[in-house]
Amino acid sequence: MERKSLAPGSSYFYYPRLVCVIGVRDEAKQTTNFAPVAWSTPLSSHPPLFGVCLSPATYSHHLVLATGEFTLNFLPHGEAGVAEQLGRLSGKRVDKVAQLSLALEGGEVIATPFLAVAYAAAECTLVERHQFGDQTLLVGEVLRVHVGADACDDNGVVRLDRIRPLLYLGSNRYVTTDAATVLQPSAAPG
Amino acid sequence: MERKSLAPGSSYFYYPRLVCVIGVRDEAKQTTNFAPVAWSTPLSSHPPLFGVCLSPATYSHHLVLATGEFTLNFLPHGEAGVAEQLGRLSGKRVDKVAQLSLALEGGEVIATPFLAVAYAAAECTLVERHQFGDQTLLVGEVLRVHVGADACDDNGVVRLDRIRPLLYLGSNRYVTTDAATVLQPSAAPG
Repeated sequence: MERKSLAPGSSYFYYPRLVCVIGVRDEAKQTTNFAPVAWSTPLSSHPPLFGVCLSPATYSHHLVLATGEFTLNFLPHGEAGVAEQLGRLSGKRVDKVAQLSLALEGGEVIATPFLAVAYAAAECTLVERHQFGDQTLLVGEVLRVHVGADACDDNGVVRLDRIRPLLYLGSNRYVTTDAATVLQPSAAPG
Repeated sequence: MERKSLAPGSSYFYYPRLVCVIGVRDEAKQTTNFAPVAWSTPLSSHPPLFGVCLSPATYSHHLVLATGEFTLNFLPHGEAGVAEQLGRLSGKRVDKVAQLSLALEGGEVIATPFLAVAYAAAECTLVERHQFGDQTLLVGEVLRVHVGADACDDNGVVRLDRIRPLLYLGSNRYVTTDAATVLQPSAAPG
């Protein structure tokens, strides 16, 4: 393959990635702040841990350390504009939920709500954090998961014929999956 | 939204995720082992760090600790069968590269090669590792990135009209993106 060799930081080669919106309560203002994160990953099955990268300079980072809990919110492709606005607005200055007229739903285990538009959401408590370069990896233990009644099949796999997950592509661009391309390779060598 | 409340571990709510194949040299056998990883994320921009989760029980984990370096390889959707086989075969028992007739390319900085079928690859040195639950997060510093000559646009964004990235959906299913759904929301509230 003809290739270009690039310095790190000059390409978005590790995208597309599922947009994960982190929700954190602002106890002083009695509001909940939501911020989109593209750098996140499951970390462990037993216990169920999920990691989210935030810059220590962000308001959400400050809030997570204060409350010790957060929600994860996964949005459909139609909400790309909401994700983009959640990233542009500063929760330090404005109540994003009020400004964007977002509906919230209460969880079962923690006090932090999740976004009603999320096709999947999870309640987490902060169990660890690690500084890696210019970001903090916030490690949450997943306590409870909430999915739309029709969002997953019997195996727990997201039904892409019904849900169009919002993926971030870099440089303020978003995309979703093509349900017609789902495949399950056989066990025989391809 | 009508919802189901689930215990963690009973759904693949955090998929789809880009398949990242980790390449690690096996110095004793003079081969390179490749294993697909779905749990990975960029961790920092300055310095450029990328994290990959591996079970401490895997052969790749053992090899990374021995060599201190690895490559990241991102495959097109057409290689789903290869990704599936790389996950099923054990590098401890077989030479996956020979068995699957995979072509390799040499990097510039480290000794570990990458997969010729990868539309994007990166050379990394292991700089840190952390145990989170049942997985180790291996933290690599990205030293050099190699992309197909036509894989990225002038902004460094993957050209989905030319590249169809392989995403993992859970339960041995794979999918790719729909290039017709790329959008760039305006700065005005949605």
